[in-house]
Amino acid sequence: MYKIAVDAMGGDFAPESTVLGSLKAVKDFKDIELTLYGDENKIRKYMKEDHERIKIVHTDSFIDMGEHDPIKAIRSNRKSSLVLAMKSCKEGENDGLVTCGPTQAVIVGAHIIIKRIPGMSRVALAPIMPTVDGRGRILLDVGANVELRPEHLEELAIYATVAAREVFKVESPRVGLLNIGTEPGKGRQVDEETYDVLMANPNINFVGNVETKDILTSPCEILLTDGFTGNMVLKTLEGTAKGSGIILKQEIMKSFWSKLGYALFMRKAFKNYKKFLSGDDVGGAMICGINVPVVKAHGSSDAEGFYHGIRRIRGLIESDLVNKVITLLPKKEEEVSEEN
Amino acid sequence: MYKIAVDAMGGDFAPESTVLGSLKAVKDFKDIELTLYGDENKIRKYMKEDHERIKIVHTDSFIDMGEHDPIKAIRSNRKSSLVLAMKSCKEGENDGLVTCGPTQAVIVGAHIIIKRIPGMSRVALAPIMPTVDGRGRILLDVGANVELRPEHLEELAIYATVAAREVFKVESPRVGLLNIGTEPGKGRQVDEETYDVLMANPNINFVGNVETKDILTSPCEILLTDGFTGNMVLKTLEGTAKGSGIILKQEIMKSFWSKLGYALFMRKAFKNYKKFLSGDDVGGAMICGINVPVVKAHGSSDAEGFYHGIRRIRGLIESDLVNKVITLLPKKEEEVSEEN
Repeated sequence: MYKIAVDAMGGDFAPESTVLGSLKAVKDFKDIELTLYGDENKIRKYMKEDHERIKIVHTDSFIDMGEHDPIKAIRSNRKSSLVLAMKSCKEGENDGLVTCGPTQAVIVGAHIIIKRIPGMSRVALAPIMPTVDGRGRILLDVGANVELRPEHLEELAIYATVAAREVFKVESPRVGLLNIGTEPGKGRQVDEETYDVLMANPNINFVGNVETKDILTSPCEILLTDGFTGNMVLKTLEGTAKGSGIILKQEIMKSFWSKLGYALFMRKAFKNYKKFLSGDDVGGAMICGINVPVVKAHGSSDAEGFYHGIRRIRGLIESDLVNKVITLLPKKEEEVSEEN
Repeated sequence: MYKIAVDAMGGDFAPESTVLGSLKAVKDFKDIELTLYGDENKIRKYMKEDHERIKIVHTDSFIDMGEHDPIKAIRSNRKSSLVLAMKSCKEGENDGLVTCGPTQAVIVGAHIIIKRIPGMSRVALAPIMPTVDGRGRILLDVGANVELRPEHLEELAIYATVAAREVFKVESPRVGLLNIGTEPGKGRQVDEETYDVLMANPNINFVGNVETKDILTSPCEILLTDGFTGNMVLKTLEGTAKGSGIILKQEIMKSFWSKLGYALFMRKAFKNYKKFLSGDDVGGAMICGINVPVVKAHGSSDAEGFYHGIRRIRGLIESDLVNKVITLLPKKEEEVSEEN
């Protein structure tokens, strides 16, 4: 039985989205047990009957979605649904966590409370982006660290490789380094050095540099860069998808006939397109490097989106993610010398 | 009379595109004189009659669009159309240059042959991106320098400010620094320092940090960042515009009715949308910091695209760009002490 901690109060539509998503998940997966952390009265509004595999741990407190100081939010809300859920993972009561809470608070909380995997120097935020082939790609880091050294990127590539085996069901996920050209030697000094480090690691299927013009079409399951660049790339993708939709609408509205064509025939295609680019069905972002799997679903997730977050966490727990990462992490020098 | 050097052989469709674009330009603008550098026989194929304001300087040699070593390309092709056109600017025979040649060769050649403006430490590539309001925005640097220090970005912001007055016909163009959040203090150390430097300069209308999710909608006429980040952002924009077009087409083709709607009513709207995002009508990229205005039009420009490149150069020459930049550049410390 996989035990999953659910932050029932995180997200714009909580607890409706989190409770209904949880109910759907226990129906589909007979091997999960959920503990919902949050306001029991509010949770009960959407869960009329008890369920043998759903437990509720009551708390009045939760972290506000508009919270701007994530460290303060975690430290001063020790009874919040997110912090309680994290503590349960730290203490081994649960094997993984899913939340729609505010991103930076989730990253900081996971770091402070659950802690990093031994041997991981950094924690990264890794969303699964929508792509042309519909399978999605893991992009990391998108903002947990503005700067990362080559050895940090190497550790994160290991984590992402193990996770991607589960997410994409492929034996040897391909890793690409986002860069300004495909040839070796491109980019900043850190990119050149990272290229060499990744190439030398036999546990990483590194295929080389990937340009961002191929961001939606690259064959790589994993696209790697520092948190500053990844954040710029991800938000450019979001902004362009949104902006180009507006531009296309403007073009359509210019002519009576295309307006008619849109109204009569195209609404559904556009709706699907919008849903696709929102990434709602890909199950949110992973917080890579934490001692249990943590999924941060979109703040605006509906029940379906939250369900996919639980599905993702279940898969990551089942795959024994953390232990596999530990065996593949490069040995640090001090560890090696201790062994000798 | 504004004298413009035209690299007639650069670009995928040269010299047809460059000659037809030139003919259209001299027709529309009575105050320009063009000198076309290239193969006279090939040029004459598209220009049956002499034109009193078009001169041809013959050369057999040109720089191949697939050239991978830009420095070698410039140094070993001293008789190429691009190098001859650049030399004419260096020697004061022409006041500006337009080319569709390979980007890196144009940057390197402008740097080596025409040289930087005194007081400019770096040269940057600055395309005008398509935006939702149809006016476009200047993005720089997109790849001439992988790393830039705050004082380099300050100089480039001055150049872009003067250029943007002409390009957008606004008195005080707004400058935004691309960053991972809008608050001051966001980003890498270089971004924090650049924020302070830009804020302190009275000649720059710096409005603060801009997130890339607003890349197509920001009110800023100028979006500033280093060449690595700018290149990643621009190519993500291109890749997403292209990829999301494919995704939308896939959605449309899924249903008979939306397919029909597309075929009957929407082709033109999609064609305009595609043309819009290609940026063909915005006149290419500026090479910022060079001693005469240089425009690098798209390699795939047609006659219309090349015409807009000439229109852009004409405007930049008319605005007395280079001299205005020189008066606004921050004085270097050694210069200040010499004056005392």
